[in-house]
Amino acid sequence: MKADLIIIADEVLSGEIVDTNSAFIAEKLTDIGVEVRRIVAIGDVRKEIEFSVKNSLPDVELVITSGGLGITVDDVTKEVIAGIFGKELVFNDSLYKKIKERYNNLGHKILSGKTREFAKIPSGAKIFPNPEGTAPGILIESDNKSLILLPGIPREMKAIMSESVIPYLKEKITDVVYLKKVIRTTGIGESRLAEILDPIISNWKNPYVSFLPRIEGVDIRLRIKGVKRDEAEKRLDDAKNEVLKHIKRWVYTTEDESLIDVVSRLLNEKKLSISVAESCSGGSISSVLTDISGSSKYFDSGVVSYSNHAKIYILGVRKEIIKKYGAVSSQTAIAMAEGIRNISDTDIGLSTTGIFGPTGAAPKKPVGLVYIGYSDKKGSEFKEYLFGNDRRRNKIKTTQEALNMLRKNIIRNYL
Amino acid sequence: MKADLIIIADEVLSGEIVDTNSAFIAEKLTDIGVEVRRIVAIGDVRKEIEFSVKNSLPDVELVITSGGLGITVDDVTKEVIAGIFGKELVFNDSLYKKIKERYNNLGHKILSGKTREFAKIPSGAKIFPNPEGTAPGILIESDNKSLILLPGIPREMKAIMSESVIPYLKEKITDVVYLKKVIRTTGIGESRLAEILDPIISNWKNPYVSFLPRIEGVDIRLRIKGVKRDEAEKRLDDAKNEVLKHIKRWVYTTEDESLIDVVSRLLNEKKLSISVAESCSGGSISSVLTDISGSSKYFDSGVVSYSNHAKIYILGVRKEIIKKYGAVSSQTAIAMAEGIRNISDTDIGLSTTGIFGPTGAAPKKPVGLVYIGYSDKKGSEFKEYLFGNDRRRNKIKTTQEALNMLRKNIIRNYL
Repeated sequence: MKADLIIIADEVLSGEIVDTNSAFIAEKLTDIGVEVRRIVAIGDVRKEIEFSVKNSLPDVELVITSGGLGITVDDVTKEVIAGIFGKELVFNDSLYKKIKERYNNLGHKILSGKTREFAKIPSGAKIFPNPEGTAPGILIESDNKSLILLPGIPREMKAIMSESVIPYLKEKITDVVYLKKVIRTTGIGESRLAEILDPIISNWKNPYVSFLPRIEGVDIRLRIKGVKRDEAEKRLDDAKNEVLKHIKRWVYTTEDESLIDVVSRLLNEKKLSISVAESCSGGSISSVLTDISGSSKYFDSGVVSYSNHAKIYILGVRKEIIKKYGAVSSQTAIAMAEGIRNISDTDIGLSTTGIFGPTGAAPKKPVGLVYIGYSDKKGSEFKEYLFGNDRRRNKIKTTQEALNMLRKNIIRNYL
Repeated sequence: MKADLIIIADEVLSGEIVDTNSAFIAEKLTDIGVEVRRIVAIGDVRKEIEFSVKNSLPDVELVITSGGLGITVDDVTKEVIAGIFGKELVFNDSLYKKIKERYNNLGHKILSGKTREFAKIPSGAKIFPNPEGTAPGILIESDNKSLILLPGIPREMKAIMSESVIPYLKEKITDVVYLKKVIRTTGIGESRLAEILDPIISNWKNPYVSFLPRIEGVDIRLRIKGVKRDEAEKRLDDAKNEVLKHIKRWVYTTEDESLIDVVSRLLNEKKLSISVAESCSGGSISSVLTDISGSSKYFDSGVVSYSNHAKIYILGVRKEIIKKYGAVSSQTAIAMAEGIRNISDTDIGLSTTGIFGPTGAAPKKPVGLVYIGYSDKKGSEFKEYLFGNDRRRNKIKTTQEALNMLRKNIIRNYL
């Protein structure tokens, strides 16, 4: 099945907002084996909507639009598309009842004339409920083609996609099954991964392997197309295990979760407490560790010891260590990790010290040099890194490496 | 002048990456008065590229493509577009010399056959230099229309847009001048802003006013179209001042800069030092304050005192205050700000304590309740906020409000 997406939003054309809706829809479709051929963004302009839909319909089986389903004068999507199929907009009683109920529950005022507009649907069309808002998704089926209208508000669009559109499409694609697996790595670049895996995967067509590099690390995606679900699942699983065999040390999850999800689960499972002493990372590790609701169960405290004064007087790092080895050194990193663990009385202490740049280099201490320190009941250790000179990237990389060091050490020392 | 954009990238169609290039190009064009009519994303497919370019050319004066200018077999943009105009790809000696020079300077190996491909340009086309990479921008002019090919790598595309494409277009639009002014606000919602400003701006057509709401605050954009630059500048300035008159207390800048840029400039100008004690915000304020290179001049230290233990033993908050008023209270916020200022010996102490949710509410302490504390030589104060129950939004809002409180207090107490 092939699909075109049509995004209807003036703010996208003026560059005021970045369109993230199309990437969400495209990924969901790709996951179930629907191939997106073209994505078009246009304004709330009758001529443009008509032109784009008519341009797409002959060549694809599915067209999804997003946007223009509100009730201001600008919102013409429903009307124009009904027109293309020679249909009228008709008032839908039961839909209106549900909209009124929702408004009542939320305590919103019903502007009778205006609110009724939401309940007008092209005749013969089906409705995909909107659990997050008022304008429903609309499905028009004609000549074995499906045209689906979704609202533009991301939260609403996503809910309708996940709860209605994907199940609807899955029912249509009964002859084949598409499955995906993600292997998430950190601490290794795309080219090195490819070097290791190429001898194994270069001839694989199904499952098909692709790399998605991000600053935090490289995701490896395995997609398979099969006839029998059991068989496809088994083949995908075998492929995953084969890949894992060669790169396991860089993998932090094979589920749809981020590194902080993994780390916070481990901390909770083992009932471990943690404190963090950050210099170069400036509070970023504490901030990520507390992004999780309920993090107060494991996170005790953090110190951002930017100045030497703070390293010495808050963390208790000995003056002589900083004097002898410098603030950016493995010795200081370890003293910071032990210091914060000591004053916070936590199971684990984690620390960073480095030069994020673009300025601040010193003799033998180039921009990008970072030490991460770790301390627990089994002792203390550090790791040395040499990142680049992009301050923003260095912060993200340091945070990710610190979390990964934490993950590995919990597994080694506590599981 | 009207323009269409064509993004050529397989990863955009599969939803693996969000296309941010088109928003960048669209905003740059809008700024100089070029109206973007349509944005199309397609794959590296000859038929699709040809179809999209041919679809756009009749109705617009400018088409910009981005992507597909590399030298792998997938990259067919140059060839297909040359074909549309009946042109050959010809090898450009002086371009190849520059590419070789660049490779030598970077210490890259030149793959003679492959690297030469970069220097092939449609005959008669002009070159826009690429200061960040190898593939140059390419300009084809035909029948009073301009077709511009740009690479897909954001850094490269942006450099060519700013340094070559915009100056080129500005020369073509000599009869009119387009100017923009941004007024950035925080701490006030879009609807309240509209309520205040509508009586003044509702009849304005030129300059034209639009609101761009973000979690951090609402940007107000004023755009003007004029014949004489001086006159347009004066009218835009008058309009800006008229708007400012009514909303000044929420405005942190009228330049293209963020709140942290303003705050760090103020701290540097006044040679002030700062330390931060964070509970709910989890290190986010420290992290933003240290995002700026050279922040060690003003930032001394931060403490993320998630536990009461940390509030008491690191910051020196008196046990009785927490016992009597609770950890989430104005009294604790002030004691934290004074505590961190005291132990760090800085000019200013800033603090946060609150409940970010979605869980953690207590009697009379709902989710979203946040106190921000501030302390300097003139004394201490706090502000109380009631945000929503979205943890991520609460962190961004708290960080922004804290920085804004800092900005206002520096202006009041130190300027």
